[in-house]
Amino acid sequence: MKPSSSPSEALLRGLSGAADVDVELDDRRLLQAMLDTEAALARATADAGLLPATVADEIARHCHADRYDPAALGAAAEAAGNPVVPLVRELTAAVAQPARAWVHHGATSQDVLDSALALVVTRAAVPLLRHVEVAADAAAGLARAHRDTVMVARTLGQQAAPTTFGLKAAGWLLGLHEARTRLARACDALPAQLGGAVGTLAGYGPAGLAVAQRFAAHLGLATSPLPWHTRRQPVLDLAAALGGLLAATGKVALDVGLLAQTEVGEVGEGGTGRGGSSAMPHKRNPVDSVLVTAAARRSPGLVGTLFAAAGQEHERATGGWHAEWEPLLELVHLAGGAAARTARMLTDLRVHPQRMRANLDASGGLLLAEAVAARLAPALGRAAAHDLVARAATGACFRDALLADSEIRAHLSEADIDAALDPAGWLGSATALVDRALDVHDRGTG
Amino acid sequence: MKPSSSPSEALLRGLSGAADVDVELDDRRLLQAMLDTEAALARATADAGLLPATVADEIARHCHADRYDPAALGAAAEAAGNPVVPLVRELTAAVAQPARAWVHHGATSQDVLDSALALVVTRAAVPLLRHVEVAADAAAGLARAHRDTVMVARTLGQQAAPTTFGLKAAGWLLGLHEARTRLARACDALPAQLGGAVGTLAGYGPAGLAVAQRFAAHLGLATSPLPWHTRRQPVLDLAAALGGLLAATGKVALDVGLLAQTEVGEVGEGGTGRGGSSAMPHKRNPVDSVLVTAAARRSPGLVGTLFAAAGQEHERATGGWHAEWEPLLELVHLAGGAAARTARMLTDLRVHPQRMRANLDASGGLLLAEAVAARLAPALGRAAAHDLVARAATGACFRDALLADSEIRAHLSEADIDAALDPAGWLGSATALVDRALDVHDRGTG
Amino acid sequence: MKPSSSPSEALLRGLSGAADVDVELDDRRLLQAMLDTEAALARATADAGLLPATVADEIARHCHADRYDPAALGAAAEAAGNPVVPLVRELTAAVAQPARAWVHHGATSQDVLDSALALVVTRAAVPLLRHVEVAADAAAGLARAHRDTVMVARTLGQQAAPTTFGLKAAGWLLGLHEARTRLARACDALPAQLGGAVGTLAGYGPAGLAVAQRFAAHLGLATSPLPWHTRRQPVLDLAAALGGLLAATGKVALDVGLLAQTEVGEVGEGGTGRGGSSAMPHKRNPVDSVLVTAAARRSPGLVGTLFAAAGQEHERATGGWHAEWEPLLELVHLAGGAAARTARMLTDLRVHPQRMRANLDASGGLLLAEAVAARLAPALGRAAAHDLVARAATGACFRDALLADSEIRAHLSEADIDAALDPAGWLGSATALVDRALDVHDRGTG
Amino acid sequence: MKPSSSPSEALLRGLSGAADVDVELDDRRLLQAMLDTEAALARATADAGLLPATVADEIARHCHADRYDPAALGAAAEAAGNPVVPLVRELTAAVAQPARAWVHHGATSQDVLDSALALVVTRAAVPLLRHVEVAADAAAGLARAHRDTVMVARTLGQQAAPTTFGLKAAGWLLGLHEARTRLARACDALPAQLGGAVGTLAGYGPAGLAVAQRFAAHLGLATSPLPWHTRRQPVLDLAAALGGLLAATGKVALDVGLLAQTEVGEVGEGGTGRGGSSAMPHKRNPVDSVLVTAAARRSPGLVGTLFAAAGQEHERATGGWHAEWEPLLELVHLAGGAAARTARMLTDLRVHPQRMRANLDASGGLLLAEAVAARLAPALGRAAAHDLVARAATGACFRDALLADSEIRAHLSEADIDAALDPAGWLGSATALVDRALDVHDRGTG
Repeated sequence: MKPSSSPSEALLRGLSGAADVDVELDDRRLLQAMLDTEAALARATADAGLLPATVADEIARHCHADRYDPAALGAAAEAAGNPVVPLVRELTAAVAQPARAWVHHGATSQDVLDSALALVVTRAAVPLLRHVEVAADAAAGLARAHRDTVMVARTLGQQAAPTTFGLKAAGWLLGLHEARTRLARACDALPAQLGGAVGTLAGYGPAGLAVAQRFAAHLGLATSPLPWHTRRQPVLDLAAALGGLLAATGKVALDVGLLAQTEVGEVGEGGTGRGGSSAMPHKRNPVDSVLVTAAARRSPGLVGTLFAAAGQEHERATGGWHAEWEPLLELVHLAGGAAARTARMLTDLRVHPQRMRANLDASGGLLLAEAVAARLAPALGRAAAHDLVARAATGACFRDALLADSEIRAHLSEADIDAALDPAGWLGSATALVDRALDVHDRGTG
Repeated sequence: MKPSSSPSEALLRGLSGAADVDVELDDRRLLQAMLDTEAALARATADAGLLPATVADEIARHCHADRYDPAALGAAAEAAGNPVVPLVRELTAAVAQPARAWVHHGATSQDVLDSALALVVTRAAVPLLRHVEVAADAAAGLARAHRDTVMVARTLGQQAAPTTFGLKAAGWLLGLHEARTRLARACDALPAQLGGAVGTLAGYGPAGLAVAQRFAAHLGLATSPLPWHTRRQPVLDLAAALGGLLAATGKVALDVGLLAQTEVGEVGEGGTGRGGSSAMPHKRNPVDSVLVTAAARRSPGLVGTLFAAAGQEHERATGGWHAEWEPLLELVHLAGGAAARTARMLTDLRVHPQRMRANLDASGGLLLAEAVAARLAPALGRAAAHDLVARAATGACFRDALLADSEIRAHLSEADIDAALDPAGWLGSATALVDRALDVHDRGTG
Repeated sequence: MKPSSSPSEALLRGLSGAADVDVELDDRRLLQAMLDTEAALARATADAGLLPATVADEIARHCHADRYDPAALGAAAEAAGNPVVPLVRELTAAVAQPARAWVHHGATSQDVLDSALALVVTRAAVPLLRHVEVAADAAAGLARAHRDTVMVARTLGQQAAPTTFGLKAAGWLLGLHEARTRLARACDALPAQLGGAVGTLAGYGPAGLAVAQRFAAHLGLATSPLPWHTRRQPVLDLAAALGGLLAATGKVALDVGLLAQTEVGEVGEGGTGRGGSSAMPHKRNPVDSVLVTAAARRSPGLVGTLFAAAGQEHERATGGWHAEWEPLLELVHLAGGAAARTARMLTDLRVHPQRMRANLDASGGLLLAEAVAARLAPALGRAAAHDLVARAATGACFRDALLADSEIRAHLSEADIDAALDPAGWLGSATALVDRALDVHDRGTG
Repeated sequence: MKPSSSPSEALLRGLSGAADVDVELDDRRLLQAMLDTEAALARATADAGLLPATVADEIARHCHADRYDPAALGAAAEAAGNPVVPLVRELTAAVAQPARAWVHHGATSQDVLDSALALVVTRAAVPLLRHVEVAADAAAGLARAHRDTVMVARTLGQQAAPTTFGLKAAGWLLGLHEARTRLARACDALPAQLGGAVGTLAGYGPAGLAVAQRFAAHLGLATSPLPWHTRRQPVLDLAAALGGLLAATGKVALDVGLLAQTEVGEVGEGGTGRGGSSAMPHKRNPVDSVLVTAAARRSPGLVGTLFAAAGQEHERATGGWHAEWEPLLELVHLAGGAAARTARMLTDLRVHPQRMRANLDASGGLLLAEAVAARLAPALGRAAAHDLVARAATGACFRDALLADSEIRAHLSEADIDAALDPAGWLGSATALVDRALDVHDRGTG
């Protein structure tokens, strides 16, 4: 079977990913991570006294990705079932004696590829988490700036009652914060993989645990009590964290897209030269919202795939492991794109408080019916108050109906009624909740 | 639309679930949890000084599930879109004045149903986690008892090298342990939900945060910085933890099923009267393994559904929230069945060490080729040692070929060769790894 | 393991399903379908001359679901791994000699359960397809009635250009039509299952094919060239068809929900007493839209589960088959609820043409910029025409800007401009497309 | 945002795909398909008399992918949300007047990309279906060659009764045949997409339907009654067909992997130089089986994603459409790799009839208990026969026990017993079923 062509990467892939995250996922970086793993293995074996440090040096000296051809390795990988086998062959051929016999000593392909993928993911997580932080900071900025910007809250698609744009942004902020915390935690916990052919570390004699410990240390990865060749909880933790991040960014994008609808018009995406339409020049599409929504829609299938792949047989699996590689990288890719676009979307967001207020007022105060009833309740009891207000709510203009109702007027002056109809007076704990979210964000805790 | 019939619960549902977990998920318990939530709300509102404690007492007095008809509530729920609306109506009708106006005060349907589902899940988690603990204890027992039971390790379906059954069981143990830890953590973190109509707690005036705090305390649930009506990370954490548990039990079941194959025969499911076949009386099916595998296969779709449902609009969603209820309960149901069956499967597991040894020996020592090469390496160098051994490995009987090879015999006596061919000598760190897993289990840490 | 409790069926299940479909899926009907299968098997065996017709009569006489207790069978099923084993035991005990030896003759559990599930699904498809037809008829009615009702088309959430509500309804209609056709075809093709223990029909000697053919005929199911114990294409066809139906209804619900937003207000759900809110009495929720959307969100996970379950080992699977039962029934359940609610939603839909027109006009004719340019193009060339119009489109009022532009006025009179700004003149083939969809519907072709 | 790097395509992608299919999916081919679409649009518009044929020629003259830079287009796509916008810009700049104004006339980006993806998929389906045919032919060859090769059938992982390897291969064949039929049908039905900005074909005046018809004809694609911008049944049909193919190949791979287990050893993958292990030189891994299994495991998540993406809003979607592109191409990629590897796996399969026979005999005839009972039944009745045989089945050697049982010997001679214990005598309709599958294959019907 000849090597595969490249996928439609240039035309489509930039629409789902972010360049600085994707660069960490490419062939060159994956190859380097595999070579870093071989170098770390040699050093760890030397640390344990199984081979001279000079041999480890000789091996490490050849662990540079630019000395190898990913395409040739990929082509050779097909016969072996993974790219580690041909890489080990080439690395072995490259090193001078007596190092040859020590290349990949005691390890199995999965040790190298799992560890390399862990490296790749943790390295990609650096720009990825930076995007999430920018997005969270932007959400925090919106929450602060719009703490008192009243707008209508919508439930099941219907206008419901007043809230503030600050509280909406605080919800986005908390979602991003929780997702960031989980992803950082999952990355920090990603263990190096070293078990040898069947997970017993048999190739290292009594030094197995020491080699494994040194190996993880050289890679800067966590350690696992046992090799995790077929116990894939670390992959599931990562999948869930990435899926959570895509959900959190997807929530922001969903809200922005809905608020940007022509008929709602409360926010718009910023930036210049973005969102043009090929057919309709007057139209400005909320492109980032659309692309983040698209990424979020693709996440559950990939999360599910990684959970499905976790059913792995015996000491090493007959397909489940191989099924993880690309979906895991794809999930990081999508999370990167979604985070970067959410950061841009929130940083550049155009907020239209007048339109928010206009939409809130469009129902003539009806959204404040509960507030009016609450003012009547101390005198009339809650049930009677509710009934009186409901009677007034059927008319054309709610305020006029309230003013015209003698039973109501017996308890409320015109000023009382106007105060009740002021949305700013029916925001409950909105401000305190904004402060809470900002506080969580500022403290940076999980 | 008339109320729906019951699903095929009696015939099929017992095959995927466990009775003691499922009982926590049934109508009666969910209804009680909804009523517990209404009672807690009344008490919390009273704690905050918004109503007299006697009113809260009157409401709580009516919060007993046996006073309401789930079928009638379910039928009425259809028009409202959720079962809280008719329950509040009935509860309101039941209480004596002046309590009527205070039932469900300041809350929205989602506050009640989210909190009730959190209660149901945490209550179901008690028997569920107990099953996981029994399973983990049984795995620990197997790891301890079979610390020295050699068997063949298999990778990609092929015999690969020696390991111990103890190490295999230790891997199961660690998987169960990790899953248990994550599920317990997710349950402990499950927050009460209270936000009112649009998440501002507007109905409680300045007392909103205090009411929310007392509400969670009465329910014994965690608190969240903000209402989480459309920020579903708690649900995702739960989904991931349940999916992880199903993966961990699925891994055990997969291995048991493969080891129980007629041609392998290294373990069998215990128990009497189980696993009969309708067509083949001589056959004994590994029923628990099959049913746990089936449950594990259903998990990724449900996990994915919950991640997909997390895209929720504005202040309350137009479908995403409703999409969570049954899949979440279904996931708990499946996890319960899988945990209970894994506990039974491991507790009753029949282990056949002789068969393990026979399978290990079937290749005439070939699996120890690496061990022989390791003994030759100090004298010959690793590469030459490897080549010599590979030459011997092509013959019919590996041991004979080794004994007959003069170059090998120049360095290894017959006793040396037999020692190298002893699988017990090529187990690497297997015992130490078993100890590690047992230690993690005994310490009960995550 | 004790039998499981019933799930939260009464409280929640009616919100995702429809009563007339769900009744076909319940224990009693599944049990009857299993018994129908045993009766058909006896008759088919008699037809082939392997046993006397009187024996088949005796067996069939006992194949009535009300003689058996689903709960007891379910409890006993746990030990066997499926409910067929205990049912065969009970049926055998019930019949008089010499029939006992012939109960379930030559069959395996999977023959009975697969065939019974095929029966259950085809029976449930009767009311289900009826709902789809009602929904399609209602969509056709809307397409016909609103053939000339102009409204704004929206792309990426933004107002884009004029269309008709008739064309929107025609799109819904075609989607429902295609889904109906696929589901009917998948049900018609559902084969009976008969292979015996390992798919060779060994128990029937040379009469195997004849028995299988008669068996399918008695059940009114299709035949398959081979038993399909581990070749699950029929299940996949069904899953895809049900998933397609949920997608088609979900599309309708999504559009209705968006059109019913307070700020859009172009349609509303009808019906009385539906959609009340527990917290906000003034609010009317689009409940059917929400519930159909929720069902549609749950479909992909179940479709994926059935595709994942199709990886089935050897002659009968170790978990994949068991994983199908409940997800398949759940998918039918969800499709039933979605179809019934879509039928009601479309039948009762309140359409507001004035609001549609008002939303279309809100941008002051800007949506017709393309139409104006098209009128200028013959004289100026398309590019110049486009540039002129784009210049006018930047002003406050598009019509005024057009009228004030001397270059434009050199070619277009005020009447020309008003004609260009009339949305009815820029509908392209909308009417013809509506006719096409109605024609497809009326002809009832796929 | 800078253009994204290429993914890990060279190292990993060849392990999941096939070169000849993947080449059809790459940037260059997708770009060419987009340009083919623009050319077809120009010609169709000319056919309808809206522009001179010379203009269409001028446009078509520039529709060659090697004149454009996919990377630059991809980079520019980010701002527009899809790659069509910059391509139209470049194509417009390239053509000579008066053609410029007619490039992309009346179309929207989605028209071009949907049609281009339909072209890409139908083109990729050519090598893909060829692989499926090779695989099916190889399965047919095995079914024919091993029509009489007895082996043990396995259910729930346990040896169950005799079958033939021919019947197993016939099952694979039928699965591949059904999948091929469905995929060919879905590709044949793939419609061109043309609706213009909002699906009304407004840009073509009264000629819309004619243009759409000619457009599809030029592309060699089917037509759809209405544009399908947000009615995604064609995508779902394709997803289901590709998922079905991955399930059918996955079933073959699963069986081959299990039969190739060291302890079973009934088949092995052929080919030279494949399946080496980095850690264990003596080991030969069933690489194709593993890689096909891995591809099949990734399919349900992608199928589910495409079903989830089908919820598309209004006239064009806010994310659902964008979410389809890469998963659809990925599914074709995986199907290509799985089909090519299954073709190779079956073509080169090493079948070991002696090992099959040995495994069948390993239980000393116990698998034929049913056959012995069937011989006793005419004399004793089925129940008594069954009991007698069950008594004999408990001993060490079944044949000896049968011979020693006087009640049995009263009816069966030693020759009778040996005949009953001959697996070739208990194969039921295996041969006739093989013929049926071969007949379906030879006739090439669905």
